[in-house]
Amino acid sequence: MAPKKMAIIATKGTLDMAYPPFILASTAAALGYEVQVFFTFYGLQLLRKDLSDVKISPLANPAMPMPVPMPVMVQILPGMESMATMMMKNKLKSKGVASLEELRDLCLEADVKFIACQMTVDLFDFDKSDFIDGIEYGGASTFMGFAGETDICLFV
Amino acid sequence: MAPKKMAIIATKGTLDMAYPPFILASTAAALGYEVQVFFTFYGLQLLRKDLSDVKISPLANPAMPMPVPMPVMVQILPGMESMATMMMKNKLKSKGVASLEELRDLCLEADVKFIACQMTVDLFDFDKSDFIDGIEYGGASTFMGFAGETDICLFV
Amino acid sequence: MAPKKMAIIATKGTLDMAYPPFILASTAAALGYEVQVFFTFYGLQLLRKDLSDVKISPLANPAMPMPVPMPVMVQILPGMESMATMMMKNKLKSKGVASLEELRDLCLEADVKFIACQMTVDLFDFDKSDFIDGIEYGGASTFMGFAGETDICLFV
Repeated sequence: MAPKKMAIIATKGTLDMAYPPFILASTAAALGYEVQVFFTFYGLQLLRKDLSDVKISPLANPAMPMPVPMPVMVQILPGMESMATMMMKNKLKSKGVASLEELRDLCLEADVKFIACQMTVDLFDFDKSDFIDGIEYGGASTFMGFAGETDICLFV
Repeated sequence: MAPKKMAIIATKGTLDMAYPPFILASTAAALGYEVQVFFTFYGLQLLRKDLSDVKISPLANPAMPMPVPMPVMVQILPGMESMATMMMKNKLKSKGVASLEELRDLCLEADVKFIACQMTVDLFDFDKSDFIDGIEYGGASTFMGFAGETDICLFV
Repeated sequence: MAPKKMAIIATKGTLDMAYPPFILASTAAALGYEVQVFFTFYGLQLLRKDLSDVKISPLANPAMPMPVPMPVMVQILPGMESMATMMMKNKLKSKGVASLEELRDLCLEADVKFIACQMTVDLFDFDKSDFIDGIEYGGASTFMGFAGETDICLFV
């Protein structure tokens, strides 16, 4: 029987929305799915070798669980983005959740195919040498060939 | 003939993005679909008994229709998040749109299955007694079993 | 053989998230797909004749590539949203990326069906005369009839 297929379009580059593509892709791969992830727009940030700049913003998300409620006027102060990022990373670590780098490696080891959107690379002048090895470059049109055959196709 | 199936991954916890999962799930159920919603990340906020803390932020969304244009420097003032939330709730009510609680009840009455992401519950130290009854707890892997068989699978 | 089908639910109305629905819809149509896009919530802004108010916010998105890093306290200053919008539009133009209007026309010429969510039109008191011609008005329930038969169904 042909394996099931999953495609993900990863368009976000924040710490919180970086997790879903990697968790879903690695989970599906572990279940025997053939998986492709198309990184486009801010999602391209997730293909950088160095993921230390992937941050989370407390702004505009009143649904973010906070240890203490923080007024918007405090959230905009210098250093708050870095603090929120550090707090989230510590929380993830203390709860035993794998890091983005670990989940990304897991995907690659499980033969998840990563495709970087060539148009976005050009648009934002990304330097391909900043990206990890083992990825491909392509456009929406190429990706559609795979997406149209999938059992699950998600836009993150 | 087997019923059609829909799966939704609900990751947002703001008032505006809380509506799509409940509207789509209840609509699909009314059309005879078998529906499962997997609540993860901020989406877990939508399973609380008390939804009065589900808010909307005017920040970072220049597409939000406003009665009067409001500069960002005003949007950050204390109380503006609560005001935007109140205004949106009044608008929904005056236009006869069901409340989140009503739509959620509609889903449950129509046998939509709600699954809370166990990993997120642990990560954010959610208290299960804050959540409504009649939900299940599980992981991405369990959810995939259903998602892989669906006709529609959405990431909200 | 029946053509493949794609459905998109477009819920965002910012300049960055306006591109994916139009790019994916026009690409799929060019590949022979039958495509429907359901515009709801802020997505309705993308059906206006005049798209000059479609803006991008630098706030709450630390993943946005910036020529120079800009602290949140600077991002909130008056005019920064317009500046970020102008910078993004210039970048898109200089890189030869089609404008939103052009991509939207491309979709319509390729017989992509645009459906405006009647509930949102009522909710936000949109004036239908502000919208482009050649669109339909409907609800989630009508849209589901098509979505349930698609090969790809995305929530943007």
